[in-house]
Amino acid sequence: MNFLNQLKEITKKNNSLLCVGLDSDLEKTPAHLMSSTHPLFEFNKNIIDQTHDLVCAYKIQIAFYSACGKEEDLVLTVDYIHKNYPTVPVVLDAKRGDIGNTAECYVKEAFKRYKADALTVNPYMGFDSLQPFLDQKDKGIIILCRTSNPGAKDLQNLKIAGKPLYQHVATKAAKEWNKNNNVLLVVGATYPKELAEIRAITGDMVFLVPGIGAQGGDVEAAVKNGVDTAGGGLIINSSRGIIYASKEKDYASVARKMAEQTRDQINQYRHAAVS
Amino acid sequence: MNFLNQLKEITKKNNSLLCVGLDSDLEKTPAHLMSSTHPLFEFNKNIIDQTHDLVCAYKIQIAFYSACGKEEDLVLTVDYIHKNYPTVPVVLDAKRGDIGNTAECYVKEAFKRYKADALTVNPYMGFDSLQPFLDQKDKGIIILCRTSNPGAKDLQNLKIAGKPLYQHVATKAAKEWNKNNNVLLVVGATYPKELAEIRAITGDMVFLVPGIGAQGGDVEAAVKNGVDTAGGGLIINSSRGIIYASKEKDYASVARKMAEQTRDQINQYRHAAVS
Repeated sequence: MNFLNQLKEITKKNNSLLCVGLDSDLEKTPAHLMSSTHPLFEFNKNIIDQTHDLVCAYKIQIAFYSACGKEEDLVLTVDYIHKNYPTVPVVLDAKRGDIGNTAECYVKEAFKRYKADALTVNPYMGFDSLQPFLDQKDKGIIILCRTSNPGAKDLQNLKIAGKPLYQHVATKAAKEWNKNNNVLLVVGATYPKELAEIRAITGDMVFLVPGIGAQGGDVEAAVKNGVDTAGGGLIINSSRGIIYASKEKDYASVARKMAEQTRDQINQYRHAAVS
Repeated sequence: MNFLNQLKEITKKNNSLLCVGLDSDLEKTPAHLMSSTHPLFEFNKNIIDQTHDLVCAYKIQIAFYSACGKEEDLVLTVDYIHKNYPTVPVVLDAKRGDIGNTAECYVKEAFKRYKADALTVNPYMGFDSLQPFLDQKDKGIIILCRTSNPGAKDLQNLKIAGKPLYQHVATKAAKEWNKNNNVLLVVGATYPKELAEIRAITGDMVFLVPGIGAQGGDVEAAVKNGVDTAGGGLIINSSRGIIYASKEKDYASVARKMAEQTRDQINQYRHAAVS
């Protein structure tokens, strides 16, 4: 099944727009897991077992694994999700982008080696740098549009013919780059006004929304400005706010509480937005 | 010694602006090396032994190693260069870019794990996404500006207040982001007019120039439009055109011939440009 259909089904089944971000940091791993050969995988496994019925996806930030040479933990984590909770898709957050033969290598990295269901990519190098990713019809290709960090404005808000760059990216993504109906956009929760503008441009395209939780984005404003006409169309990510809500042995059960609370908070505004 | 000083010395010593790109592809590795545990490293080692006195740097495209899980080959390659040819710096071509704590992970990946001397980064997410890289004072931080691929124009040539986006990136890089004097730019050889415009904006900043060789960029035009006032300021990369000039057992000695020829061709135009 392709990523977007899988997402639609799990969103309904788990009644959730919440994505838990497995930005699992070796330096923050609880002491009792550090003797394992695969401490990041053991950490993730417990989080996944506790949250799989509350999420619409998991997002794995590759940088945390490559910083410390824990590629195998990443492989094991995706395998674990696919085997035990096959309805829950996995987004690899790698923000890749490069030309032809190099982009083909990144396609292999994300989809053959790590078996991700979706991947974040950077549009700065233009269409031909995105094409090898977009050609993967069953995968979700999530293009950076308006990111959640303060510096995002440096380039993304520069105005071209009266409209900021991120709106041009949204327009290209919706009208030119989405031939295979597999494009999504990254739009930060920290700028809800921009979320509404991009929603107006792209119709019912799905957005990956970082920036709630540790980054301080307002959940209510993000949901109200971001949902599509059916009250969905969002993958709202929280990483540190959930997985490191406790740094003790009880971290996975605390993560469950935080995930449940965040999912319910999102749903409250989501239902208000379309009622 | 910091990257830019090291680059200046080796450029002089080897009389070379040529960078050999170790885009070493498992699928193109000669058969006699495939029984090795580290076939990409063995491949690279022979290329390096044959070309170290002809280059100003090596550039390693990380995607080729991560596509097939050969991170260890990358580590061994950088170690080999640092131990045997310590005057030749290593550029890791990874085009990373992400926010705060994730960018810190990419800093660790590039400079602690792989011990690169310089790294390519993507500016789309703005200054705060670049800062953790720019804080590495001794490293070269090479920001994508005008890339060598046809699709580069999709975003990079959009006009803001009459000037294309890539010129805004060049201006920010030169005037705002270069507090530690460690910024370089990626400017493709395939658009020599743009090379001249960016040279005019940035003074004597060093450019990493991809696009000659397999990508078809015109060496003469790139050198004449790109050199700084002293006839340097360029790291001109060729990857496939050198390392796969032969796909047989003689690949390393053929690579040497191609490297020598390319270096000399560059020097011919370089000396003409400042004479």
